[in-house]
Amino acid sequence: MRIVRDIGELELEGTVGLVPTMGALHDGHRALFRAARGENDVVVTSLFVNGAQFDDADDLAAYPRDEAQDAQIAAQEGVDVLFAPASSVVYPSGFGTWVEVDDTGAEGAARPGHFRAVATVCLKLFNIVRPQRAYFGQKDGQQVAVVERLVRDLDLDVEIRVVPTVRDSDGLALSSRNVHLSPDERTRALALPRALAAGAEAFAAGHDALAEARRAFNGSTPDYVEIVETERATLLAAALRIGSTRLIDNVLLKGELS
Amino acid sequence: MRIVRDIGELELEGTVGLVPTMGALHDGHRALFRAARGENDVVVTSLFVNGAQFDDADDLAAYPRDEAQDAQIAAQEGVDVLFAPASSVVYPSGFGTWVEVDDTGAEGAARPGHFRAVATVCLKLFNIVRPQRAYFGQKDGQQVAVVERLVRDLDLDVEIRVVPTVRDSDGLALSSRNVHLSPDERTRALALPRALAAGAEAFAAGHDALAEARRAFNGSTPDYVEIVETERATLLAAALRIGSTRLIDNVLLKGELS
Repeated sequence: MRIVRDIGELELEGTVGLVPTMGALHDGHRALFRAARGENDVVVTSLFVNGAQFDDADDLAAYPRDEAQDAQIAAQEGVDVLFAPASSVVYPSGFGTWVEVDDTGAEGAARPGHFRAVATVCLKLFNIVRPQRAYFGQKDGQQVAVVERLVRDLDLDVEIRVVPTVRDSDGLALSSRNVHLSPDERTRALALPRALAAGAEAFAAGHDALAEARRAFNGSTPDYVEIVETERATLLAAALRIGSTRLIDNVLLKGELS
Repeated sequence: MRIVRDIGELELEGTVGLVPTMGALHDGHRALFRAARGENDVVVTSLFVNGAQFDDADDLAAYPRDEAQDAQIAAQEGVDVLFAPASSVVYPSGFGTWVEVDDTGAEGAARPGHFRAVATVCLKLFNIVRPQRAYFGQKDGQQVAVVERLVRDLDLDVEIRVVPTVRDSDGLALSSRNVHLSPDERTRALALPRALAAGAEAFAAGHDALAEARRAFNGSTPDYVEIVETERATLLAAALRIGSTRLIDNVLLKGELS
């Protein structure tokens, strides 16, 4: 696996699959790498903690970083190129162009500027790497909706592939932020997948998914519970703050991911 | 020359030069077509009156439109493809992604939302047509600065070529809006190129270009006089309203256009 830090060194041939990440790789990322490995000549993963998309400086400072371990995981999954640019490569001095996507839902409202930075860095990565396909996890459901809309609205020639959320055996969705949870917090965090599962079950039985999910939080108070529409799917999504850690999750109600 | 209205019909081979226009073609556009014809296998011009970039509904309604004559001019200059999409092709229902470029100067301040729409439609046209080179007139100096910045900041793989302003024998820069000027207004409009020329002359003599240009307006009041920095040039730019017509112009102080 090549580790590339400069845009000029990225010379790729054949079909290219891109997996954009912020590092701190876990089994959810492994699922993205495997999906990309299965259908592209070259698999590129980007490892870039996009400071611009953090609305909370403490969250950015605490975000886990371990490039050596990330490189090992990517290599194990057959990634060909790890693109790990410095911030000054992505946002050189004088940078000042941003992509704004309308209607980014409750997650967008909760994190002002977040999806603007996500859309901008994704567009830049697509332009730098020129992939035929790019891979995103279902777990970041509103991000999927934003990136799909970016691609459609700006006539980008890249196929967005959405890979189902990977969960621990207790049901908690894998997330780089889970490392911040104490054992007690982790137990409380299970309210999030439990409430979403209850909502999906209610929906399948013809009832109100939102109302049932809200009810099933049962004492803990989510930031929001909402319906997210992606290109081909309807998701039931929620965010829950546990101590200083904010977790998001969603389940599929209708359609298919990609 | 092929006239194309749908994105799917644009199948181009070889090096492509794109000349984005809003139609109402004049000799300034002919200079852009000739520049493109001289260095590309395929020359595409887009003819799209981008409603989103008009901050003034009357200006949009009055903007001259004559596709048959535009097609004749483009064909005379050796254009291969005239891309003339309907508004619903460029902005389909549900469209909601916009590119914001910071620091768009006095022209941007005078026309809120204008350069956002310019940057967005240019990015879309670049993604749709995939040109190696795109051609813009020096006359729209701040637009050149915005498009160059868009290309740099978003890592676009297109070369921006800037073609010198074409002027009538009296010095007035060619513009689609000149048709709105009465003979008397046209005489008064000459204050614009005269003041800019005086500013450039002062600059060459080591004096203050801005102060001299402002002085040389001599009775008429410009919207602004300012310095615009493009990638390789420093321009002295101004806008002047004559009756209901607003004209912009600029002259080169330093550097080269492209």
